[in-house]
Order: sequence, then structure tokens, then C-alpha cells
Amino acid sequence: MTVTDELLANAERYAQSFDKGDLPLPPARGVAVLACMDARLNPYGLLGLTEGDAHVIRNAGGVVTADERRSLAISQRLLGTTEIILIHHTDCGMLTFTDDGFKASIEAETGLKPDWSAEAFGDLEEDVRQSIRRIQADPFIPHKDKVRGFVYDVRTGKLTEVLAS
Amino acid sequence: MTVTDELLANAERYAQSFDKGDLPLPPARGVAVLACMDARLNPYGLLGLTEGDAHVIRNAGGVVTADERRSLAISQRLLGTTEIILIHHTDCGMLTFTDDGFKASIEAETGLKPDWSAEAFGDLEEDVRQSIRRIQADPFIPHKDKVRGFVYDVRTGKLTEVLAS
Repeated sequence: MTVTDELLANAERYAQSFDKGDLPLPPARGVAVLACMDARLNPYGLLGLTEGDAHVIRNAGGVVTADERRSLAISQRLLGTTEIILIHHTDCGMLTFTDDGFKASIEAETGLKPDWSAEAFGDLEEDVRQSIRRIQADPFIPHKDKVRGFVYDVRTGKLTEVLAS
Repeated sequence: MTVTDELLANAERYAQSFDKGDLPLPPARGVAVLACMDARLNPYGLLGLTEGDAHVIRNAGGVVTADERRSLAISQRLLGTTEIILIHHTDCGMLTFTDDGFKASIEAETGLKPDWSAEAFGDLEEDVRQSIRRIQADPFIPHKDKVRGFVYDVRTGKLTEVLAS
């Protein structure tokens, strides 16, 4: 019995009481959230989101790379979102290593050096600003007047906005 | 008052009743979920996940590109996850366009052709298998014996496994 099997049992229960089968494809609230994949950060609980409300995009760090720009372009151009909420968080794993060190350890084990940036960062707030700047610099994301960035505190549950420095 | 402002009011309420400040960084269940960003797909409700349980990675389509391989490598190598759950879903926006058409429409508007693949697909189950194969082919993700793919039905709430063809 794997953990996946246990989670599938939860999914069966979810389906049994499911009553949200008529929701439209475009997000009701017109928002895309881009957050770190961290297990302690639950965008649904934190922002009060429910099924149908918002696009949720997540990766290691909540950083903006080509794939997030692709997702945001699709979200805005095809599905009508106009606001973007970026969320990094305290005690992030991305603060605990460097790109060079991580890639060197992988190369030592596999003989291959990753051909991607690991996107590690040393300053949470500065990386939120970096993410905002990457979105502002992207030519394919049309709506950029409502892009805001935040740091979530995993100890207190508080969300704090990162303002331009 | 933007939608973001409304969601921030929810975040203040979340912090007021927050009691999960002692969770460790590594996911308790040792699982990484990779799902589509679709607003109707709520991995927490569906899989019965709560704060601290699992990494959640999401993008347009729930596809596997370089950034998801980066996130999965970090999830497994630095934070101890060993199982991967892939989730696509019915009525996906990615079924409604082609890469060529989407990129041509962007080029017509901006004068620039995106330098990324839009990752549109025509067959849900086949794209789940494509995602599994991309993970299996990656040299930097160490644990590949518990990678399983599913299609979530947005009308019924049911999750169905995609088996190898």
C-alpha cells in the first residue's frame, strides 16, 4: 500500500459527495495564483479559494521561468484572468542551497550536469521582486497592472506584501 | 477594490485561526502532486491533503517541461519525496487550441512569436502517458518506481487512473 493508494481512497470519498459539476472553465474570480510548491503553503485555505475560483500555478520556489510565463499567457489570453498573486514563503527550501552546489552534487552522482537553472535564491523579498520584474518584462502576458507579490510566514500563517524597494 | 484585495481579507482570517506553525519542511506524506492549474481541480479537497502533506506543482495542462523536472528533482533530492501523482482533467483548456494557432495569434498581436511550446494536446490520456514518459526519461529525478497518472472528471469529481497503453 503506497501513500498514493491512500490518497486515492480519499479521492473516492471526494467524488461521492461531489456537487460542483457545473462550473465553467474560466476562473470565476479572474485571478491566477503563482506559489511555491511547499507542503505547508495551502493556497486554498490561505486565500479562501474554492473549486472554480482561480488558476493555481506552483513550482519549487514559486519562481517565474518560461513555463510559468507560458501558463500565465494561457491563463490571461484564453481564460480571462487579469490579476496575478505571487507567493513565496519563509523557511523555503530554495534558501538552503546554491545552484552551483546543487548541480555539482547531481553531476557527481549521475555524471550529467542539469541544463536548467535550479533557481535557488538567498533573499526572499528580493526574489519576489525578481518574479514581478520577470512578469513585467514578458511580452506575451497582456495584463500586468494587477501583479502583486507576497511572503507567507509558515510559522504564523500571515501573508505580507512585498513592496517595490 | 480588486479581487486580490478580497482574497487578502481571507488571508487575514486564515492567520487569525492558524495553528500549524510547527510543521517541518519535508512533506509528511513523501508525495509530489503535479496537476493542471485549472480552477475546478482542487488537489487538497480531491486527495484529502492538508498543510504539510505534499508538494503541489501545477501549470497549464499539468504537463512535464524543464521547470517541472527541476521542481521534481528538488522535491526528491532535497526534500525526500518518492512518489509522484500526475493529474490531467476533462474539459481542459489545452484541448481547445493548437500550439501553432495560439502562437500565431500572439505573433499577430505583439509581433513576437513565443519561444516556448504552448504544450497543447489533443488526447488527455495520451498526454498523461507522455508526462509519465518524460519523467521516466529524465536523468535527474531519482525515484521513478511510483509515478502514476490520472484524469480527473470535472463533471463527476471522479479520478481515473491512466494505464500504460
